[in-house]
Amino acid sequence: MAEPKQTGWTRRHLLGLEELNREEIVHVLDTAESFKEVSTRSIKKVPALRGKVVVNLFFEPSTRTRTSFGLAATRLSADVVDFSKTGSSASKGETLKDTARNLQAMGVDIVVIRHESPGSAHALAKILDASVVNAGDGPHEHPTQGLLDIFTIREAKGRVEGLKVLFVGDITHSRVARSNIWGLTKLGAEVAVAGPATLIPRTLTTLGVKIHYDLDEVIGEFDVINLLRIQVERQQANLFPSIREYTRLYGIDKERLARAKKDVLIMHPGPVNRGVEITADVADGPHSAILRQVTNGLAVRMAVLYLVSGAKGEGA
Amino acid sequence: MAEPKQTGWTRRHLLGLEELNREEIVHVLDTAESFKEVSTRSIKKVPALRGKVVVNLFFEPSTRTRTSFGLAATRLSADVVDFSKTGSSASKGETLKDTARNLQAMGVDIVVIRHESPGSAHALAKILDASVVNAGDGPHEHPTQGLLDIFTIREAKGRVEGLKVLFVGDITHSRVARSNIWGLTKLGAEVAVAGPATLIPRTLTTLGVKIHYDLDEVIGEFDVINLLRIQVERQQANLFPSIREYTRLYGIDKERLARAKKDVLIMHPGPVNRGVEITADVADGPHSAILRQVTNGLAVRMAVLYLVSGAKGEGA
Amino acid sequence: MAEPKQTGWTRRHLLGLEELNREEIVHVLDTAESFKEVSTRSIKKVPALRGKVVVNLFFEPSTRTRTSFGLAATRLSADVVDFSKTGSSASKGETLKDTARNLQAMGVDIVVIRHESPGSAHALAKILDASVVNAGDGPHEHPTQGLLDIFTIREAKGRVEGLKVLFVGDITHSRVARSNIWGLTKLGAEVAVAGPATLIPRTLTTLGVKIHYDLDEVIGEFDVINLLRIQVERQQANLFPSIREYTRLYGIDKERLARAKKDVLIMHPGPVNRGVEITADVADGPHSAILRQVTNGLAVRMAVLYLVSGAKGEGA
Repeated sequence: MAEPKQTGWTRRHLLGLEELNREEIVHVLDTAESFKEVSTRSIKKVPALRGKVVVNLFFEPSTRTRTSFGLAATRLSADVVDFSKTGSSASKGETLKDTARNLQAMGVDIVVIRHESPGSAHALAKILDASVVNAGDGPHEHPTQGLLDIFTIREAKGRVEGLKVLFVGDITHSRVARSNIWGLTKLGAEVAVAGPATLIPRTLTTLGVKIHYDLDEVIGEFDVINLLRIQVERQQANLFPSIREYTRLYGIDKERLARAKKDVLIMHPGPVNRGVEITADVADGPHSAILRQVTNGLAVRMAVLYLVSGAKGEGA
Repeated sequence: MAEPKQTGWTRRHLLGLEELNREEIVHVLDTAESFKEVSTRSIKKVPALRGKVVVNLFFEPSTRTRTSFGLAATRLSADVVDFSKTGSSASKGETLKDTARNLQAMGVDIVVIRHESPGSAHALAKILDASVVNAGDGPHEHPTQGLLDIFTIREAKGRVEGLKVLFVGDITHSRVARSNIWGLTKLGAEVAVAGPATLIPRTLTTLGVKIHYDLDEVIGEFDVINLLRIQVERQQANLFPSIREYTRLYGIDKERLARAKKDVLIMHPGPVNRGVEITADVADGPHSAILRQVTNGLAVRMAVLYLVSGAKGEGA
Repeated sequence: MAEPKQTGWTRRHLLGLEELNREEIVHVLDTAESFKEVSTRSIKKVPALRGKVVVNLFFEPSTRTRTSFGLAATRLSADVVDFSKTGSSASKGETLKDTARNLQAMGVDIVVIRHESPGSAHALAKILDASVVNAGDGPHEHPTQGLLDIFTIREAKGRVEGLKVLFVGDITHSRVARSNIWGLTKLGAEVAVAGPATLIPRTLTTLGVKIHYDLDEVIGEFDVINLLRIQVERQQANLFPSIREYTRLYGIDKERLARAKKDVLIMHPGPVNRGVEITADVADGPHSAILRQVTNGLAVRMAVLYLVSGAKGEGA
């Protein structure tokens, strides 16, 4: 593979899909396509980021996303430093800035950050010369997840424009849904959500998103159904009646799948609660894109690390 | 060094010594011998696995074995991902499969797994295209430990066939003993065990293993004595009277060593409870192979990672 | 960069600044200067330690120092193994030796150790063929911190000889102060300390160090002021009245800074308790060398790893 061109990419950071325009999103997807080929080789490495240092700065536990970013950096021949922290939330705001400034003083080139505070990645980007990649800032955005989901849809369906995409579950607390909605609507998809009324913010309609409460009534309309992970904590906070009731109304099993489009694509950001959002047979069945999402995540993260590292540009 | 030949090796996984035949065991030992030379060089690396990813998937804590596998992979120029998990044992079975499938979707080439459930490595091998190396599945097998012990014996004694090898201690719960017994008997050694009756399964005799309860009576007969680590938990479960009593009957000190063969080889898989299974002077003395076992472990693990990664073959 | 010469360096270990002579300290500083240039390149790597293995053996938590050593090793193209342990302090002495011997048996070339016991690094150096670098042994020494502080002073002031350097805070428990004092006095600086009487050992005067209790009275005399981190635990042990009182007497804010020399250099080994030892505006202001210390730490650690690895010499 010739290395993909960085012409036309100017952002030093990837903070969210809200601020990317249509061309930029397509640029990342096309770059990821080039890198996906690397993952099929016997020697899965390119020298693009040799001598660069990528730090994983995770303030929330996440072995999967951290590993995906780590492997993506490794395939670009970067060196990876794990700087994960979990602890008391007190005064984390300050610690975060000092930690990031220190890492930059050590010559780190890219900071991949996950933090519970919305806007934390943006705050870092303001004070660092290093590139910042948002790996999830509270319920706000998780842009690489949005990009990998859109990549997977485009790969499966050949296009994004005009597709009808449904998100099912806890929309209120989902950075995955939020990043997807920004990205998908910019690429011309029609986005809708379905779930318990207590877990869907009404303001979504201002983004052109349709809200449904009865999944069975509308399930036949959609090309793609993306199931969000249910967090047991929400249920304990009485935001929905019970896991069993949730599954009865919104879980995807063979019967409910039969009412969907013949070629519907079933997605889930993982980790799956088998038997809750989706039954095992559907998760492992022919409509499921779950493992392809994981594979594509690596290619998308390679693209993102590659693009931000090469940008001479003016920041986010 | 020319890279060792992979001719004749067909297994994609290393799950246990029970399923290897004599020729395969010798093949690993000979390959390890080639790799041992690498560890004596100034630059201790060969490019054999460049661009391959080895994941350490440890569900039980083990800094030593994990580090040994990690260093072995590094010397082969592979990239290493640490994916260690410790947590509640509930529903681990399912999590394990999903975790492994996810890692494979990220393009991992070799999964080195330690898990408390016997058969867990075999279960993974059934569902993965990646290679699986068993780094200990409960009390069942720990094949690389078996191979490194046999390597160390062959190196010290010049042969394995016809040697008399004794394992001392908690045989029932020892995957180390189990793997060694499979391997040693296939290579023509005579294996016996000694320890408290409560910690020795009678069924061992069906494998051709002799059982002794009085160590002092038979100690003079053996060319190799391999001391198993005593787990304090077992004692608390009343499986033997007391640590002090255990040491009195089965611990190796200078006095007991004097009754063994002049050229007896004393082994221990580590970590040693000094003063329990063995006194410090014997552990650090001229008969002890304990540190050589550690050194050889690296060469054996390099050989195993190398062989399974190159196998085009039909699985385990 | 041509690789720096190792001529004249004979030590296989770096255990403390107490045992280095003036020439050796200058040798490390000059080597670090060469390596600092590497950190300004686009590809921040040199092949000096390719194929060597550096292990971080940290028995006390320290993400910053561990990361600094890890990155330094990576820039020298070494492979890094993290072997951090935290646990019960019981019988650590023995575990430490066995752990280190095991790591050496795995072919590790350099052991970077942090341990709560003074003399632990020296003890390891006695039994290992591998190089040992002390990354902090209790309150005793932290030689690379001393060296990076001295490097930063020399870089900022053009010299060390004849400078007046003040350490402020808890001197008794500070390995940072101790290593700095050995190094600075050998290079001809005049060292003084200021802080609560309960936190300053009187015996310091035998090293030629002046003791002050009233910071405001003497602050105008010094070219460099190095603020030590206050450990809240000490305060709980009633070694000083209260954090607020400490800050009132010894914290550096704009007002107190105004009474210092115009070109005073303000240092802190980090992590800073903003508002306690120093206010945010001073920490981030033009006199502060805090982030430069972090950057220089990397260059100094590259120099140390490089020098000890090349020494054919006779040990510490």
